[in-house]
Amino acid sequence: MDFKEELRKYQKEIELELEKYIRKEDCPERVLNEAMEYSLMANGKRLRPILVLASYRLFRQDIQKCMPFAIAIELLHNFSLIHDDLPGIDNDDFRHGKLTNHKKYNEATAILAGDALLNQAYMVISNELLKTENKYDLELKIKVFNEFTIAIDRMIAGEYVDTEFEGKDISLDYLEYNYNNKTGALIRLCVRMGAILANAKNEEIERLTNYAEKIGLAYQIKDDLLSVEGDELITGKPVGNDEARKKCTYISKYGLQEAKDVLERLIAEAIKITDDFGEKAEFLKELALYIKNRNK
Amino acid sequence: MDFKEELRKYQKEIELELEKYIRKEDCPERVLNEAMEYSLMANGKRLRPILVLASYRLFRQDIQKCMPFAIAIELLHNFSLIHDDLPGIDNDDFRHGKLTNHKKYNEATAILAGDALLNQAYMVISNELLKTENKYDLELKIKVFNEFTIAIDRMIAGEYVDTEFEGKDISLDYLEYNYNNKTGALIRLCVRMGAILANAKNEEIERLTNYAEKIGLAYQIKDDLLSVEGDELITGKPVGNDEARKKCTYISKYGLQEAKDVLERLIAEAIKITDDFGEKAEFLKELALYIKNRNK
Repeated sequence: MDFKEELRKYQKEIELELEKYIRKEDCPERVLNEAMEYSLMANGKRLRPILVLASYRLFRQDIQKCMPFAIAIELLHNFSLIHDDLPGIDNDDFRHGKLTNHKKYNEATAILAGDALLNQAYMVISNELLKTENKYDLELKIKVFNEFTIAIDRMIAGEYVDTEFEGKDISLDYLEYNYNNKTGALIRLCVRMGAILANAKNEEIERLTNYAEKIGLAYQIKDDLLSVEGDELITGKPVGNDEARKKCTYISKYGLQEAKDVLERLIAEAIKITDDFGEKAEFLKELALYIKNRNK
Repeated sequence: MDFKEELRKYQKEIELELEKYIRKEDCPERVLNEAMEYSLMANGKRLRPILVLASYRLFRQDIQKCMPFAIAIELLHNFSLIHDDLPGIDNDDFRHGKLTNHKKYNEATAILAGDALLNQAYMVISNELLKTENKYDLELKIKVFNEFTIAIDRMIAGEYVDTEFEGKDISLDYLEYNYNNKTGALIRLCVRMGAILANAKNEEIERLTNYAEKIGLAYQIKDDLLSVEGDELITGKPVGNDEARKKCTYISKYGLQEAKDVLERLIAEAIKITDDFGEKAEFLKELALYIKNRNK
């Protein structure tokens, strides 16, 4: 398998699908719709929806069936990026090398575009429920809807804790709580959604959840590393940002080397879990390596 | 029927129920939970959840069955108030005579408390779907979930249009579009939710929708009137606010008298619709009068 090729295929598939959810009508809220599109189409990595699809694909091949849920995740993810970037929260001017939403439009538009994307994610899910006739499939989708609400709740709580403790030295427990909620909850949700929708066995769902927890924490540590060692032109975010804000991160707490060691260990553990699923999990294995080695 | 007594009974019932959804645990996001509680418990009129319950009660008496949906509406309504008050949007310092959320806490907390309330509304709905076993009831609840997502989408679009056109003279079409979305969509949803959950006939649902559209527009016009003629100590909002912002309202467009005439007409039409439902609709009839005569 050519991982990069696979990844691009997934990205393209998701972007083609996302296009269908973008509103182009001429209506009084046209600029709001444009602002939503601006963030949705801003060169995201599509990692989260890809996780939904790849997890589903371990068990079933008809991924069109879980595509709307992958789209819901991407809508939701963009809501969280727009709100996190706001002046009242992280006050970031750039994201993916482009102006952030409130810089491109204005604050009111960015707040409402975020709100609308969060709500649109639920709109997509409700449309899926509405058209599902098979009782058993409906049960799975309702379970996924419920897990979705809980993960987003955790994500928002994590973002709050991140904001509240900026500039303070916090305990490892708090830092991990923060990482597990802010980034981890959503990545965990993606993998579980795919597996649940594919009707995987509970034991398989739990093993994949474990994989997701490893790569979720690894993803956040890698983000911390990129904030110190990344190439601004590639990451699209200013280097040294976390330090300038006196953010408590794995690096500020343990130093660069220890953070790298933890990252290595987590990825090795994640890969070990994919081994249990055999060859069909090759993409998820490569994805774990990609999270470690990515430069943006 | 003593309307004021009935209204107070409903309010008390809703507030007792809301208490169950407030999180009191000692956790890292404790202050976020407090901020959510602060707005939820800030002397709201509870008009929207009351509409859900009163509409349900036209057809069925076991209102506990639709209570979670009434709660979801109140959570949702508070999300919209917190975000509308933000410095980036309406920049209001007071609401219900108390400091607005971002004034009491800070902007980051208010943004995230709003996000969390919107998401919590969906969490409540998903829990309801999860525990509904009867196939037919489940269908009704999924229909309500779907209408919920659409109404919130309209509400956010309406708020956007309101922001974008502040200070501009807009056409009557735009003004009505704005009112129908910003305030109307949610009031319409409340009434429909109650009727759908109670398994009312389509024709009854449509008649009630018509009622909701009348009182929804009336509610917004009354808000405009209170902004000019209200008592600041009672409304809890500064008088002359709309004018100071050069907001285009029914009053700025047609003058005070014409706005009052339209309000009278809409309420008379709403009352006429309740007559079709006979005596059991007395509360909804009185509620229409209350919307016209309220002083806050």
